[in-house]
Amino acid sequence: MAGEAVASFQAHKIPPTVTASISSRIHGRHLGLPVRAGHSNIAADPAPRREQRKPEKALNLPSSISSILHLNLDTHLPTNLLSVLHLNGNDHRSPKDDVLSHYLKNTPTASPKENIASIWREIHGARDWAGLLDPLHSWLRREIVKYGEFAQATYDAFDDDRFSRYCGSCRFGRSRLFSQLGLAHNGYEVTRYLYAMSHVEMPTWMERSLHAETWSKDSNWMGYVAVSSDEETRRIGRRDIVVAWRGTVTPAEWSKDVQQRLEPLHDAGGKLQHDRHKDVVKVEHGFRSLYTSKAESTRYNKTSASEQVMEEIRRLVKMYSDRGEEVSLTVTGHSLGGALALLNAHEAAAVGIPGLSHVSVVSFGAPRVGNAAFVGELEELGVKVMRVVNQQDLVPRLPGAFFNEDLGKIFPVESLDWVYSHAGVELEVDTKSSPYLKQSMTDLPAFHSLETYLHLVDGLGSVVGAFRREVRRDVALVNKACGLLRDELKIPACWYQPSNKGLVRNAHGRWVVPERDPEDIPSPLRHRAPPPSPSRSPNSQGAVPYLVAA
Amino acid sequence: MAGEAVASFQAHKIPPTVTASISSRIHGRHLGLPVRAGHSNIAADPAPRREQRKPEKALNLPSSISSILHLNLDTHLPTNLLSVLHLNGNDHRSPKDDVLSHYLKNTPTASPKENIASIWREIHGARDWAGLLDPLHSWLRREIVKYGEFAQATYDAFDDDRFSRYCGSCRFGRSRLFSQLGLAHNGYEVTRYLYAMSHVEMPTWMERSLHAETWSKDSNWMGYVAVSSDEETRRIGRRDIVVAWRGTVTPAEWSKDVQQRLEPLHDAGGKLQHDRHKDVVKVEHGFRSLYTSKAESTRYNKTSASEQVMEEIRRLVKMYSDRGEEVSLTVTGHSLGGALALLNAHEAAAVGIPGLSHVSVVSFGAPRVGNAAFVGELEELGVKVMRVVNQQDLVPRLPGAFFNEDLGKIFPVESLDWVYSHAGVELEVDTKSSPYLKQSMTDLPAFHSLETYLHLVDGLGSVVGAFRREVRRDVALVNKACGLLRDELKIPACWYQPSNKGLVRNAHGRWVVPERDPEDIPSPLRHRAPPPSPSRSPNSQGAVPYLVAA
Repeated sequence: MAGEAVASFQAHKIPPTVTASISSRIHGRHLGLPVRAGHSNIAADPAPRREQRKPEKALNLPSSISSILHLNLDTHLPTNLLSVLHLNGNDHRSPKDDVLSHYLKNTPTASPKENIASIWREIHGARDWAGLLDPLHSWLRREIVKYGEFAQATYDAFDDDRFSRYCGSCRFGRSRLFSQLGLAHNGYEVTRYLYAMSHVEMPTWMERSLHAETWSKDSNWMGYVAVSSDEETRRIGRRDIVVAWRGTVTPAEWSKDVQQRLEPLHDAGGKLQHDRHKDVVKVEHGFRSLYTSKAESTRYNKTSASEQVMEEIRRLVKMYSDRGEEVSLTVTGHSLGGALALLNAHEAAAVGIPGLSHVSVVSFGAPRVGNAAFVGELEELGVKVMRVVNQQDLVPRLPGAFFNEDLGKIFPVESLDWVYSHAGVELEVDTKSSPYLKQSMTDLPAFHSLETYLHLVDGLGSVVGAFRREVRRDVALVNKACGLLRDELKIPACWYQPSNKGLVRNAHGRWVVPERDPEDIPSPLRHRAPPPSPSRSPNSQGAVPYLVAA
Repeated sequence: MAGEAVASFQAHKIPPTVTASISSRIHGRHLGLPVRAGHSNIAADPAPRREQRKPEKALNLPSSISSILHLNLDTHLPTNLLSVLHLNGNDHRSPKDDVLSHYLKNTPTASPKENIASIWREIHGARDWAGLLDPLHSWLRREIVKYGEFAQATYDAFDDDRFSRYCGSCRFGRSRLFSQLGLAHNGYEVTRYLYAMSHVEMPTWMERSLHAETWSKDSNWMGYVAVSSDEETRRIGRRDIVVAWRGTVTPAEWSKDVQQRLEPLHDAGGKLQHDRHKDVVKVEHGFRSLYTSKAESTRYNKTSASEQVMEEIRRLVKMYSDRGEEVSLTVTGHSLGGALALLNAHEAAAVGIPGLSHVSVVSFGAPRVGNAAFVGELEELGVKVMRVVNQQDLVPRLPGAFFNEDLGKIFPVESLDWVYSHAGVELEVDTKSSPYLKQSMTDLPAFHSLETYLHLVDGLGSVVGAFRREVRRDVALVNKACGLLRDELKIPACWYQPSNKGLVRNAHGRWVVPERDPEDIPSPLRHRAPPPSPSRSPNSQGAVPYLVAA
């Protein structure tokens, strides 16, 4: 029967005990506290009660695996979306799933754009986000989503088709990345593309073309630098430089990428060698290699990702601070990209760039990167780190799932030099909080997806524990590259894909991979804006062919 | 390394023994026979040597599973496409895969359209295809591909998205099916859509929408009737009515569909009950149910698929034979669709339609349908059946993999009433013959794909055993719904799909399933051409809402 699934889902009335429990999740925690209708300013809020956000035991019927992994999945949560969303009271003429469908199709996605100039430093962690997280301040929520969209762009634009000559590059030229992805509304402009290679064998981080002739044999597009427009700058109170780092796509790939070996961040003779720490500052070998590797023989990594990004940050900071503007750096990334973001922010703060007034990181599902000494150095340098972590995502537990920053609390160990530690403040989101998401163990990889993160952040309500009914970000985006949305929403899984996987029919009637638009073909000459100062000599290589023979 | 796969494939030089063996496959069989350059007419050909087309034992290194299933897969065949295609001798400047790529992109796909009016009866089996099959006559090859494309259209146009309200229907209205699929060049026009339901529980044959409101809860679009245009009619020598039946999509689904139960075709009191056969004519229970089920409560199967198709065939035959035209019926289908084609052709021949001069079947990867008495009756009725069978496809071995028409040859059994028998003449194709295809056991489901069949038929050469270098049908089509093409061709797997799986962004910025074009919405009023004779009363139902509530 066509209506079988729907009938079955409608038949699941929420039992009274569960309703009571949900009700307690929505209201119980703040009994006696006024429910805040909105955030027009930063009101003094009670101290964060993050430890209270653990779900009630009574609600949990976790599977044994879920239990072992402490995922706290409500695998038997009733699936009546309409009840959860309070959508079934108004219209008795239409079948209920059509009410839901109508609701999801006909609410605007655009969020208000308040002027946040007066409190931008607090939003970027100047007071370690005290009072802003629980419940989440709406201005902060919108900024987190904005930076998350910048990180998501590195996935959406990445060419991972190994049959493409440009596999591993960005599908769009720098100047039209945001317009092609529908991100122009964020008010930033891309100024440089970043490329990375790795001397360390990391089998799956890199996508390679099967073609003999390809744009690059050694490097992958790894992110970009962007800067706020004049209009956005006025809204956010300072010129904001964003660096977005691409991660790897699946947790399975990710876990293979990590060698689980800490090595000193600073070279022994390097000027950054601090000796005021008892412990040596160490970071994960593989992350460091990706951030610092270069080779003269390559076309895109004659300089390392680190050198590329630092050169661009220096250029932009100088340009805007010379104009008397206040300049901030916000580094973002998901998964592996979140690890690179941390290394990047550390370096930018450590080298000391005149005119750069604030460095922060907004990462999503990021792993641990270094040891406690690394975390300590980040704090000393004033780098403010917000890590958004989905409770059901395994990646943020790696490396160091067993031995980590908690070790010192359990055993009296002399040095935490050899264990991985998380940096900064964690903003926890929870797959269970969204009535739109499936919660089975088979969906585990999707819990790590950046789109899932953005949906969950968007749903973080002004009331603790409640998923915002009025989510603005299109719920359908969750299924771009996975199938986590409940069937009732009728959004196909993995829908983000070009027509016929990009094949087009040529004049002979044959289906072929089309040549890229010249503007979108990678080129070492076009990946950054023209040099702003006459002191830098123009590139003397002349016309560079864009393909390298095998 | 980007070039690794290519280098590895180039490194596979064909060893001398294999080269000799291939050479013997190309030339050895016809030593002493003139190699025919082309077919401008039907020359007298030596008697078919189909038994000689078994592959040489020396070439086979089959895996054990392949061996058990008698698939004769050359799992260790060298993969140097260029050698096989003789493409590497001419251009030493370009990397070799680019020569291949250039070749595959820049040859025309349009085949010559010779006038075949003089021999259309032979092409449709009047002489049981004697002398036309081995080697395959090029006119016959092109006609088989034409009918195969009609069958393929039933897959390409089928809406199998369970999140669609129209799941189970044709995505396009009748009048623009061929233009939407790029099949207008075949010169036919669709006159009626066919719908089927089944009273027998066949769990996977039918696709159902998850929506409460859907176009039909009981029926699926199961094929169509088309008729040749005046121009095509002149070329092929008679007015040709085509019926194309849709099959199920995967062999796994398929094998579940078959109940393996033979039941009498004719009702005990039916006028078709023949008693001149010793054995009762029996056909597979499930196929018969799909062909004959109907229910007054449904919208699309108040009449059965059988009644729908027979009514349309009668109408068309009368219309064109009244004009003095010669009229043929060609029924085609793949897999389950091939089984329905046989039932349909049997019925059309058995009921005796005045003015219908020839009935034939062209099926692809079709299973057995009935017992020996059924096959005998088809022969008596003059139905000519060509079954195209891929040697590596398991479906044509079912039902009756163990007990079938060969039983009488092995054991002296009194009656073959209870075993399944294949009808007609088999045209064997062979996955191994194409240098473009992978041959691993994991590709087993793809060996059943209709696009694979069409590729292999297209490659059947005028020289026995050789794959035609000059294949016209686009090789990329093989990968529409599978990944059977070798990586060197750089065609993505399963590429046939709309942009973003059909989702579009609405005015609110949300991704939604769009409403169908009104012309493409199924309707019981529009699925056939207007009644041609005043004797049929117009449908009195008036405006019929296109959705049925659950």
